[in-house]
Amino acid sequence: MSTLVGALRDALSVPQVTINETVLELHSKDESYHQAVKPEVVVYPYNAQDISKMMKVAQTFNRPIYPFGLGTSLEGLVIPREDGISVDFSEMNNIIEIKEKDFLVTVQPGVTRTQLNHELKKYGLFFPVDPGADATMGGMAATNASGTTSVRYGTMRDQVRNLEVVLADGSIIQTGSNAAKSSSGYHLNGLFVGSEGTLGCFTSITLKVYGIPEHIVAGRAVFPTVHDAVAAVVSILQAGIPIARVELVDEASIQKVNEFSETTYPVKPTLFLEFHGNEAGLKHDVAFTKEIVSDHGCQAIDFEHNNAARNKLWDARHNLAYAFIHSNPGKKMMVTDVCVPISQLADAINYARQAVDQSILEGGIAGHVGDGNYHIILMFDPNHDADVKAATAINEAIVSQALAVGGTCTGEHGVGIGKQKYQQEEHGEALAVMQKIKQAIDPQNRLNPDKLVQVKE
Amino acid sequence: MSTLVGALRDALSVPQVTINETVLELHSKDESYHQAVKPEVVVYPYNAQDISKMMKVAQTFNRPIYPFGLGTSLEGLVIPREDGISVDFSEMNNIIEIKEKDFLVTVQPGVTRTQLNHELKKYGLFFPVDPGADATMGGMAATNASGTTSVRYGTMRDQVRNLEVVLADGSIIQTGSNAAKSSSGYHLNGLFVGSEGTLGCFTSITLKVYGIPEHIVAGRAVFPTVHDAVAAVVSILQAGIPIARVELVDEASIQKVNEFSETTYPVKPTLFLEFHGNEAGLKHDVAFTKEIVSDHGCQAIDFEHNNAARNKLWDARHNLAYAFIHSNPGKKMMVTDVCVPISQLADAINYARQAVDQSILEGGIAGHVGDGNYHIILMFDPNHDADVKAATAINEAIVSQALAVGGTCTGEHGVGIGKQKYQQEEHGEALAVMQKIKQAIDPQNRLNPDKLVQVKE
Repeated sequence: MSTLVGALRDALSVPQVTINETVLELHSKDESYHQAVKPEVVVYPYNAQDISKMMKVAQTFNRPIYPFGLGTSLEGLVIPREDGISVDFSEMNNIIEIKEKDFLVTVQPGVTRTQLNHELKKYGLFFPVDPGADATMGGMAATNASGTTSVRYGTMRDQVRNLEVVLADGSIIQTGSNAAKSSSGYHLNGLFVGSEGTLGCFTSITLKVYGIPEHIVAGRAVFPTVHDAVAAVVSILQAGIPIARVELVDEASIQKVNEFSETTYPVKPTLFLEFHGNEAGLKHDVAFTKEIVSDHGCQAIDFEHNNAARNKLWDARHNLAYAFIHSNPGKKMMVTDVCVPISQLADAINYARQAVDQSILEGGIAGHVGDGNYHIILMFDPNHDADVKAATAINEAIVSQALAVGGTCTGEHGVGIGKQKYQQEEHGEALAVMQKIKQAIDPQNRLNPDKLVQVKE
Repeated sequence: MSTLVGALRDALSVPQVTINETVLELHSKDESYHQAVKPEVVVYPYNAQDISKMMKVAQTFNRPIYPFGLGTSLEGLVIPREDGISVDFSEMNNIIEIKEKDFLVTVQPGVTRTQLNHELKKYGLFFPVDPGADATMGGMAATNASGTTSVRYGTMRDQVRNLEVVLADGSIIQTGSNAAKSSSGYHLNGLFVGSEGTLGCFTSITLKVYGIPEHIVAGRAVFPTVHDAVAAVVSILQAGIPIARVELVDEASIQKVNEFSETTYPVKPTLFLEFHGNEAGLKHDVAFTKEIVSDHGCQAIDFEHNNAARNKLWDARHNLAYAFIHSNPGKKMMVTDVCVPISQLADAINYARQAVDQSILEGGIAGHVGDGNYHIILMFDPNHDADVKAATAINEAIVSQALAVGGTCTGEHGVGIGKQKYQQEEHGEALAVMQKIKQAIDPQNRLNPDKLVQVKE
């Protein structure tokens, strides 16, 4: 009888199936702190048919399937079991079609965010979702990624019009259409987005794209307290100002940004802001925002109108995680991720800051505050028990706090391995409905088992 | 042994359960052309617990459940079987909570659109989804309703943050949270919205609301052809102008509007437009739009800045259906509903116009053209075979055309009874996934059976 590797090579081709140790190692982990596990084999499909064939081999050999984009997950979404098949989408990285009149693009799952935007720019279009990392569209769709621009443009789920998906039995479905909206059938687009590879492998993704804004203005507003900064954000949103990005960076984080990016930003709670629109409208939005933030005690506000200065500002924000890593050699990073109703955000962040300050760890807080989503960037030594305990305790404390005020245990990083233990508390009896859906669509529990929703086998 | 009615009265209370003929008659139909069928009994629940108890009685007596809002469905979504329990939500019409800082409102399912907006106005907020009819929030969520404002604000699915749902077994779940976004668990919000009562009964709905725009400008732009009007809309969207409404009304429909609403609009393909924003930005948007429409042959454009004139314009648009009914006494109305990629819209509408012109029927075309969604309003005599055949043939022809160009058989009216026959063609192998979901969540097929997705019993 043939081996798993032999059968996969027969079904696909020899170079598409590897057990090279370096490659296995690369597919054993992501950017999270979760324990690495090497898969048995890594497969590089070229198309949906390859994946369909692979599904049948996996069935014959009773092996689980682990989709892998670029490994930028922060909750272990791509980490396999030792007998698992890791599916790497890097050979499926073509932009299939740009339909500029329909504001749609169809891509293979291995296309990255910067690759897509580079191509869209030629058409005066852009794809707004920006989780920071240059992740793949497949990974971003599987995680329902979001980030700095979601306050204006929404999350991945808001952009997906259609997915081609290979199911565990090898069948290939389309979850939507090219229509801008539909009331036909159940909303499979929304169900499959954020399903973390537990329901099927995405093989093409049709996404909504946007015209590049006529004008963009970015700025920084400095506040005496986190509470003032968050209150200002609520007022900006209540005024109906269509802000495109609004990021909170706390004092400890600004300190790190200054050290790493050689900036001289005041070491105070700061909002990084961005506005998109026409010139006249932006002037008004910026002037109105200035009024609002000064009502909330803003101590200084600076706007950047040119590209270079704007990019520098957002680079500083995006390099925050690297700033912490850089100044903590040998340590691991844990980035927590909860989302609360915005009315609860200031209290939640204060609670989080206290939890860090009372611990033995160093950490900064940053957040997509327009959505009520914030992160703690914690540096800890994974070989030091007290460090691990402290990091785990902080994570658990802020999740409990978020759930207690009507929030969610993850705003954008996904459940993966790290947020499984909160699913029952967050979803209650709805968890049983999720389990029934998983069992109905993947009855053998073959697809990324033990992620997102656990079912009895 | 007790009767169904007796058992329901025991479980709830006597006045909540009726077999009054007039009431049964009222719950036998909606605003569609589909055949009326009276239910066996009508139940008026006061809360989720009442529905939970009713589910258990229905199980004991093996009877199907048919949720009923205000009966404004256009595809027979609320029409029961003769042995069915119609569930009327008119006693569950309280606005439970307005959380102005979180831009959220929680309502019972019987709350209507105008009732909600009347209350929200006190807080400077509004709920944007406007399907024309003053439907209930429960019905709108169950249908994934949308309408004139969806080009800017999205559909019902885009507004729903959480649903309390009573399942067929009587258990009560929450599908989401009060967080603005989440990557936790499967996206049950999106699955239950648009599920047409086939997965559970909604008992509370948490919706996103918006600040009332600082300024609103509405206008009419007149074009020589439908093709020119649609091309202008594509250019407006490509320019990134955040238009809030853009409605196409064709020549035949403008004629009816003039007769009914005593307006003197030029009898030509016309766009009804609306812009929301700050004054400076709107001035720019309006000026830019004028340039764009004149590039596309626009023959006249008029803007209304005051409330009264603006309301008159939108009343004229919303009264279109009544205008057709008024001038065709004794006839029934069929409002079709397809949605195509916007690049295909001009051709689709021309195709639809020809289909009507070549038939024996009178009809007008209107559409939410920013979404690629259009309707034909057809007047026909339900007792006249040739009329019924002609209406059915037109409906089928435009659905086939929409599906052939990557569209959907229903943009906003739902599947109900009328669009069942197109589900296989539209969804292909994905239909089997939908059937598995239905069977997993409602294994006895008790909830609005034979709507949306048919499963074998």
